[in-house]
Amino acid sequence: MAVMFKPIPNLPGAALSDLAERFGDQLSVSEAVRRNHASGEGLHADSAPDAVLMVRTTQDVSDAVVICARHEFPVIAFGAGSSIEGQLVATRGGLSIDLSEMNAILQTNGADLDARVQAGVTRKQLNAHLRDQGLFFPVDPGADASIGGMVSTRASGTTTVRYGGMRANVLGLTVVLPTGQVITTGGRARKSSAGYDLTSLFTGAEGTLGIITEIQLRLHGIPEEIAAAVCTFESLKGAVDSVIDAVQYGLPMARMELLDSLSIQAVNAYSQMDHAVQPTLFLEFHGSPTAVAEQAEIFREIAAGHGGGDFQWSTSPEARDKLWDARHKAYFAALALSPGRLGLTTDVCVPVSELADCLLKTRVDIDASGLIGPILGHVGDGNFHAILLVDPNDPDEVARVRAVSDRMVRLSLAVGGTCTGEHGVGMGKKKYLRAEHGDAVDLMAVLKQAVDPKNLMNPGKIFDL
Amino acid sequence: MAVMFKPIPNLPGAALSDLAERFGDQLSVSEAVRRNHASGEGLHADSAPDAVLMVRTTQDVSDAVVICARHEFPVIAFGAGSSIEGQLVATRGGLSIDLSEMNAILQTNGADLDARVQAGVTRKQLNAHLRDQGLFFPVDPGADASIGGMVSTRASGTTTVRYGGMRANVLGLTVVLPTGQVITTGGRARKSSAGYDLTSLFTGAEGTLGIITEIQLRLHGIPEEIAAAVCTFESLKGAVDSVIDAVQYGLPMARMELLDSLSIQAVNAYSQMDHAVQPTLFLEFHGSPTAVAEQAEIFREIAAGHGGGDFQWSTSPEARDKLWDARHKAYFAALALSPGRLGLTTDVCVPVSELADCLLKTRVDIDASGLIGPILGHVGDGNFHAILLVDPNDPDEVARVRAVSDRMVRLSLAVGGTCTGEHGVGMGKKKYLRAEHGDAVDLMAVLKQAVDPKNLMNPGKIFDL
Repeated sequence: MAVMFKPIPNLPGAALSDLAERFGDQLSVSEAVRRNHASGEGLHADSAPDAVLMVRTTQDVSDAVVICARHEFPVIAFGAGSSIEGQLVATRGGLSIDLSEMNAILQTNGADLDARVQAGVTRKQLNAHLRDQGLFFPVDPGADASIGGMVSTRASGTTTVRYGGMRANVLGLTVVLPTGQVITTGGRARKSSAGYDLTSLFTGAEGTLGIITEIQLRLHGIPEEIAAAVCTFESLKGAVDSVIDAVQYGLPMARMELLDSLSIQAVNAYSQMDHAVQPTLFLEFHGSPTAVAEQAEIFREIAAGHGGGDFQWSTSPEARDKLWDARHKAYFAALALSPGRLGLTTDVCVPVSELADCLLKTRVDIDASGLIGPILGHVGDGNFHAILLVDPNDPDEVARVRAVSDRMVRLSLAVGGTCTGEHGVGMGKKKYLRAEHGDAVDLMAVLKQAVDPKNLMNPGKIFDL
Repeated sequence: MAVMFKPIPNLPGAALSDLAERFGDQLSVSEAVRRNHASGEGLHADSAPDAVLMVRTTQDVSDAVVICARHEFPVIAFGAGSSIEGQLVATRGGLSIDLSEMNAILQTNGADLDARVQAGVTRKQLNAHLRDQGLFFPVDPGADASIGGMVSTRASGTTTVRYGGMRANVLGLTVVLPTGQVITTGGRARKSSAGYDLTSLFTGAEGTLGIITEIQLRLHGIPEEIAAAVCTFESLKGAVDSVIDAVQYGLPMARMELLDSLSIQAVNAYSQMDHAVQPTLFLEFHGSPTAVAEQAEIFREIAAGHGGGDFQWSTSPEARDKLWDARHKAYFAALALSPGRLGLTTDVCVPVSELADCLLKTRVDIDASGLIGPILGHVGDGNFHAILLVDPNDPDEVARVRAVSDRMVRLSLAVGGTCTGEHGVGMGKKKYLRAEHGDAVDLMAVLKQAVDPKNLMNPGKIFDL
């Protein structure tokens, strides 16, 4: 199933003049605006789009896509700019369609625990809106990402072990196809067997098949009781083994975050905390007061069997917010370990039984490579990251960082894991896709070619065509 | 995006002689065997395949598909024969590939809570195998379906409210594509953002894009305590409102099955039980003994607020097995209400807030149409069925049954529901697909044409091309 795309002629002038005619001030070609849309987070070479369009409606997106298709002009969807693997880089120029002003929460249904939002709504905005109704949207990747972006990268995060990631929490979508046609997928029923699962096809497609403009989301009721806890361990292995036991026991933990000693050191310094500098789990329990107390007690017993020491839990919202705020700032805390260096954040996910081994080997590898790199992760899912600090002007260090990252991915693939648990492929993981999926990549390419035959939707991402 | 397929020449002779040469005794053209593969359950016109092939390996399936492709000969995958919407009917003849002998459980991993099975393994077989390891596979559609068939129809059932359906419990697949190429999708990591979600694309594709031969499944630990309960209500609405409140409360119920008075009457007679003939919920609670007791007590209070009367719960495995056995036999119990009539089983799923209204309107409609039709369903998901009894030799009754079923689907679609919650589209729901999904059906057809350009994989199902 060899798939070939013709090289595309870029004709910025004609495309831009048609776009300007239709959109007026919504279109910007200023250097500063284009620069702001040249990349997300992460260490990928950036490349600015030829123009940036601030869209307000699905019709805006459709009209823009039609104009771009006519001129064979690439289109890149842009939300909060927080993606990590180069998803936003305009590899061939083109139009960056910025959806951040499409930030209306269109509907919330308490009885059905669902909501419909525009793609530019961010997760913090949504949760602030829902709080008074006793509802929340659980998926929490750390960054205040846009919901559209979170769908497109199939994001997950700290609460996935209990509530699932985007795949589990998206019920339906409005999508602008490469033709400009607008479709809706899924629906408001909690489940359906009616035809191909298009919602899942666009979830994780990174804007390569169309542009998502609206999302129907599952919501959850805020639990009666929430307790946060911190538990230190003598060893990384003890922490990971405790997590495995908790998962196998069926303990419905809401969060199980591992921070290694270096992560704790960084977080202590950055967020003015005084955790013991040891491998540590940050935990959260959701349920009735009785259920939360029981879960915490069971976890304490499990941890005690694996060298778990100090175990403190609290239902105080302030203590909890401080803990998760510190966790979410771990990336910046890591950067502060060595001011001036940048961070390459890795992202692998392995079967939980392989987690301790992969994590310990990576710890040894980072140290043996003479690098600074705290390890942390959503270990209940087998997902972990290393934040590898790197001086971009030191080619040798850059090479060592890339080599460690590469070995970490190869290690994950060798034990049946994935090259990316939640950040997506973008540009950074393209080279691993065939190692992970074999000939199934050919089928992905067949789908891409069928839906976007001119390869105009976010070209150069996920695979090279 | 109009999609047209050319009419296909069927050349059974040449195809069959090539198949016989490769497969010998594995191929059968006997009238009895072909008849057995002419349909599943349900009321669709049957049509036998030209031959039936008993396959033993993925390579067998691949070789058969290659031979059939060469002769443009249709291919229909067959598992346990329990699908309801005509998925197994050989509308254009061709080869029925029977996977029931591919019934090996290839691997179970207790630490990772996953298993790999061949497609012909049935859910009861799998659970019997897992029981001694303290594990279970939760998806329970009632029938002892094959896992491959359950993936293909995106099945769910009684436990979906707690554990999710097939969409949530399939981690990866081995699939034979229409070219004969074998691919593996997904993997053993609990989550991944690596490329298009091919696993979800094949889940619910009803064999129209390829044939699934192996499945990687999520497992769950058998809960420490399981309690079954029965609660009667003064009204259907009271029962449904109790379910809505329990879902909103976040009560992690494992099963919430509604049976209306007529269903209870049927089940009492068929399974020798003596439930009060009133709208009734069959419930199940999973968790620690403390958690189960607390959940049951909270549910009792919720039910009491909605006219719930007698509420009995028990942790006895015998009582539980008897209850769910009776529930699973409800179809046969319904048929026994009027010996000689057949049953048309409807299947819609609506937002839970619309459930009481849809269900009550359907009850009124069945009665006003002079039909016998118990209503029951997985109400925690908004999914319900009516088993409409029909004398196939009474054209007027057939017409009234079809009209009630049609109105039920239209009602579901009008409130944002789906035409099928768990049975799939097959032949029976094709006419509703565009009403539900609009132009998104065109995109489904584009995908079908890209993957199966000669329309040889289970032709005539999901949509007409």
